Amino acid sequence: MERVTRHFQEELESLQERLLAMGGLAEERVREAVRSLSSRDRGLVEHVLMGDEPINDLHIEVDDRCFKLLALHQPMAADLRTIVAAVKINTDLERVGDLAVNIAEAAKRYLQHPPVKPLIDIPRMADIAQGMLRDALDAYVRRDTALAEAVIGEDDRLDALKTQIFRELLTYMLSDPTTIEPALDLILVSRHLERIGDHATNIAEDVIFMVSAKDVRHHVADS
Amino acid sequence: MERVTRHFQEELESLQERLLAMGGLAEERVREAVRSLSSRDRGLVEHVLMGDEPINDLHIEVDDRCFKLLALHQPMAADLRTIVAAVKINTDLERVGDLAVNIAEAAKRYLQHPPVKPLIDIPRMADIAQGMLRDALDAYVRRDTALAEAVIGEDDRLDALKTQIFRELLTYMLSDPTTIEPALDLILVSRHLERIGDHATNIAEDVIFMVSAKDVRHHVADS
Repeated sequence: MERVTRHFQEELESLQERLLAMGGLAEERVREAVRSLSSRDRGLVEHVLMGDEPINDLHIEVDDRCFKLLALHQPMAADLRTIVAAVKINTDLERVGDLAVNIAEAAKRYLQHPPVKPLIDIPRMADIAQGMLRDALDAYVRRDTALAEAVIGEDDRLDALKTQIFRELLTYMLSDPTTIEPALDLILVSRHLERIGDHATNIAEDVIFMVSAKDVRHHVADS
Repeated sequence: MERVTRHFQEELESLQERLLAMGGLAEERVREAVRSLSSRDRGLVEHVLMGDEPINDLHIEVDDRCFKLLALHQPMAADLRTIVAAVKINTDLERVGDLAVNIAEAAKRYLQHPPVKPLIDIPRMADIAQGMLRDALDAYVRRDTALAEAVIGEDDRLDALKTQIFRELLTYMLSDPTTIEPALDLILVSRHLERIGDHATNIAEDVIFMVSAKDVRHHVADS
């Protein structure tokens, strides 16, 4: 039993290590997608569009590891919550990878037009969303609920920037119809970044549930 | 043991029943949100905006049932896959509920302007997305992979309608700047509906994995 337990802990650690690798990859792809847009780098756009496979492979691998841990070790309580959280986090990270592709698709269309404006707020949104993702995963591995709470708090900043970007771009569109099509793609990118923040928030909520078995979703005091 | 097994099967059935209830609720809210937009019914908009609680309560309840089933019965193989699928489906349905709110938020803004055009393709997208959701949940309960495959096939129709809606609205925006703001909200609604289709597709993929232990995600032949 001692040996089985040690084996389980090792498997759990390598599961977390793979999740962190996946998070790092997802974050990197978001960074590249936004940089391809802001630096008008068509080569980088194509690089992001073509590079979805490693994260999808990790998605399948992590899911498989979770199933094996559940089936072979039949964990209880905290360990069970840790693995079910990994299943959910895995899904969120895979979606973040998809959103990086969506950003690159918007960038590809955007680069067919002259730039609407210098991009400042979109890279800022990307920085916040990437930081949230990184912190949410750190919070998972370190079982740090205070950090998870901080991630959830960041979501308002993303939301405010999204609204600001929308208002500014609407002004451009209203005054110059040639900006309508490219401005629409920038609005879509800001929404994709907002959704990356939503995924980080989901992960942070899962961490709080995992550690405290308290459900913070839907703002209920207890469950 | 006989008695424990029977108890487990009963619990599993009532879990599936709750998931179906949640799916029915999510579908109903999408229907109401789109109807509030197409029939310009401000009362219905507010009804959708205020009515998120039952689905959020079900989300917490279903998650809780899954944890209890995993912890108390330590299921193996097919039963384990069925419960982990329920955890994932639960997340997808909760997001569909959020998307109904997002559609109602867009409807609320849209109704502050004169109508851009009669809405035909958006209700059509909503019908397809609702049907996909219903079929995906049927496929889950009946363990019907053929139906799940059919759901995945429907996604292309949604995508084609989304592109068509975008092109048509762009024409309006380019010819009349007063339509820019309301047309943007219709574009957002079409994206929300596309995402509801994505969630139905996720559920269908989970069903195929659950039944055949074959991973159809990311179009890999085997895993």
